[in-house]
Amino acid sequence: MTAVADLAPSVSDDPDARHASVSERPLSGVRVVECAVYIAAPSGGMALARLGAEVIRIDPIGGAPDRGRWPVAPSGESLYWAGLNQGKRSVVIDLRSERGREIATELATAPGPDAGILLHNRARRSWLDDASLRRHRHDLVHIVVEGLRDGSPALDYTVNARVGVPYLTGQADGAGVVNHVLPAWDLLTGATASTALLAALRRRDRTGLGALARISLEDVATAAMADLGWLADAQLTGSDRARHGNQLFGTYGDVLTTLDGQPVMVIAMTERQWHALQAATGTTEAFASLATTLGLELDTEEGRYEHRALISAVLARWFAEQTLDDALEALRRTGALHAAYGSLAQLARELARPGTDSVVDLVDHPGIGTVLTAGSPVRLSDVESAAMSAPRLGQHTTEVLSGVLGLSHAEIGRLLQDGVVAGEAA
Amino acid sequence: MTAVADLAPSVSDDPDARHASVSERPLSGVRVVECAVYIAAPSGGMALARLGAEVIRIDPIGGAPDRGRWPVAPSGESLYWAGLNQGKRSVVIDLRSERGREIATELATAPGPDAGILLHNRARRSWLDDASLRRHRHDLVHIVVEGLRDGSPALDYTVNARVGVPYLTGQADGAGVVNHVLPAWDLLTGATASTALLAALRRRDRTGLGALARISLEDVATAAMADLGWLADAQLTGSDRARHGNQLFGTYGDVLTTLDGQPVMVIAMTERQWHALQAATGTTEAFASLATTLGLELDTEEGRYEHRALISAVLARWFAEQTLDDALEALRRTGALHAAYGSLAQLARELARPGTDSVVDLVDHPGIGTVLTAGSPVRLSDVESAAMSAPRLGQHTTEVLSGVLGLSHAEIGRLLQDGVVAGEAA
Repeated sequence: MTAVADLAPSVSDDPDARHASVSERPLSGVRVVECAVYIAAPSGGMALARLGAEVIRIDPIGGAPDRGRWPVAPSGESLYWAGLNQGKRSVVIDLRSERGREIATELATAPGPDAGILLHNRARRSWLDDASLRRHRHDLVHIVVEGLRDGSPALDYTVNARVGVPYLTGQADGAGVVNHVLPAWDLLTGATASTALLAALRRRDRTGLGALARISLEDVATAAMADLGWLADAQLTGSDRARHGNQLFGTYGDVLTTLDGQPVMVIAMTERQWHALQAATGTTEAFASLATTLGLELDTEEGRYEHRALISAVLARWFAEQTLDDALEALRRTGALHAAYGSLAQLARELARPGTDSVVDLVDHPGIGTVLTAGSPVRLSDVESAAMSAPRLGQHTTEVLSGVLGLSHAEIGRLLQDGVVAGEAA
Repeated sequence: MTAVADLAPSVSDDPDARHASVSERPLSGVRVVECAVYIAAPSGGMALARLGAEVIRIDPIGGAPDRGRWPVAPSGESLYWAGLNQGKRSVVIDLRSERGREIATELATAPGPDAGILLHNRARRSWLDDASLRRHRHDLVHIVVEGLRDGSPALDYTVNARVGVPYLTGQADGAGVVNHVLPAWDLLTGATASTALLAALRRRDRTGLGALARISLEDVATAAMADLGWLADAQLTGSDRARHGNQLFGTYGDVLTTLDGQPVMVIAMTERQWHALQAATGTTEAFASLATTLGLELDTEEGRYEHRALISAVLARWFAEQTLDDALEALRRTGALHAAYGSLAQLARELARPGTDSVVDLVDHPGIGTVLTAGSPVRLSDVESAAMSAPRLGQHTTEVLSGVLGLSHAEIGRLLQDGVVAGEAA
């Protein structure tokens, strides 16, 4: 591991690379207080940290319930927690104590045009009530992430159950429900929250108005179903579209298997992609003659969708005679849209290889070691978007209380002694 | 349909509801020019429109390749296109003509602190080259959505193939790959783009600096795999975690089936949820005695994850004896985290019911009719987030050329006549 890390140091450890930045990161100076657990809100906060914001994550003593979430490193430290809190500052406060809640409130409502921004998913905590907070700062930008629209708890998997996706996933002839694995609604809700936060901040910059914005996993998921036209389709037809297995809906796309048993995703959405796919697989004449003899329209997306089983059957013969390498080479040559499937372990091996250009880097995290860590997927031409390490829990408690709230060393010492706040565990 | 629409009018058609807004929408006045197809970039543009931005979507004559994407209404109009372009202004320009590209450039680089913002996914078009555009406006905010990190084309499904998710999805004992159905990477990339755009805009507001930001589906997907800790886990263990079927990873969550054959998702992540689940199903004593007699730790997330098969086996007996209604009632009573599964058609029926409080509303779209349409999933306390209708293709060409570029009626008439721009098709 160390050897690999030496060969491909994280930019944050490399003074030269760090100084390659020519501009300030876009959110430089902006301070966001985050009081949240699990994926949605923390991922939104991290997106802001990656764009340069100072994100102060407040955790209760000992950490929030997501402190130990799997996957974990051999040391027992959570890879999940480290992954979702990179570049944040960690402050630990006893949120059950009156004084602790006061301190958290002061942090969230601190003055200045770049402060007074709060992101949380704890709508039911009375101290996070919007009206109470606004008494401390009337123009607070207050972003609340919720489960259901009515504020009741829900997680990605329970929300997904309600929006129909599990009945559309999996084998075409399968029955029952298939859950997705990716917590897509969490991640999308987090990104929606970061967009909302910046929009509200711009309005405050311009007009002085604060904002309370509530964003639920349920609304994000339901809106997506509507935005894709799927909900309107179900409404107009009164029924669900069929399960498509690995095939795409409304166009041609399918998984084909090579001689060596490897799956390849191929897609022919545009006419150019369709011609490239035929050229790569030597099926141009075969499809032309099928179109003529059977009177099929294959040159439109709709036509390819209708006849997708036939298209796959013809292509399958070619794939069955190629090794994966040969198939990929032929598809690449004609510019056919395709992808080989890879496992997470394969991806990790590939990305850990020195010199690989990707969004991830090897970064050392406290208590974990050097692991593949993402920088910002937003690549600005004039700013480094290097991967950052996760804080230790409570690492920045003293620094933040002193720097943001101006508490004296003696005051902070008393708070630590009284257990109102906690620093890094020894 | 009309009857339903009458009972639950879209807010945009209801003057009273519209006037309930007390503040300006957060991005009111901001003008974004969008030149994009499919899902990612258009969904990012729509998120901004929902927050109040004026989003001008530029399409080529006849529409971009996504103009007719499925699902489609009985009229043949695309529900997908309508879904992803709500609240935008549609301008049609012949982008193969020099004059057309000039006009598009002028729109994207128009002066003013709220303009000069461009979002597109056409990185390979030479007229959208950053340096050329910046000659027209040096502080352009220029957001480019790409497929792969190196700029080559990719779609959600091909990117998903590369990040390992299809090997983790589907039945625990299944083989091969299972594609997701939801274009999660597209949607997440769109939301990442809208966040990036607003961050860059704030920097410009503060410093006068423009920005070029590139965001690829590949980087967004790879970063998510890293952020969840999954990539680091695969790196450290050198192998892939097992497929979990419908069970959650790292905690207890599973699908159980009721007497009437209905699936129910139940989750016990926190201790509170675990106690509520046991109480609802009358299994508290059974699990206590199992824990004692077999020496199992079930009161930690890790323990419940390890013994998830056993937990499900015990719970399955209870579910098999309850109807869905009875099971839901019992789970609700104790506050156990759960969800019944519903199909898209069920969801559509439920949401079309008058008086249902949800993020969607019945909105009339040109050429389509009145369909379930999402408002903003960001609910601001002082602003209406009503669902908006999609434009007709070219509906705003004349208005935008006159209003934004100040072209005269005579000039616009000539452009229309020469086919450089097009209005709404008759």
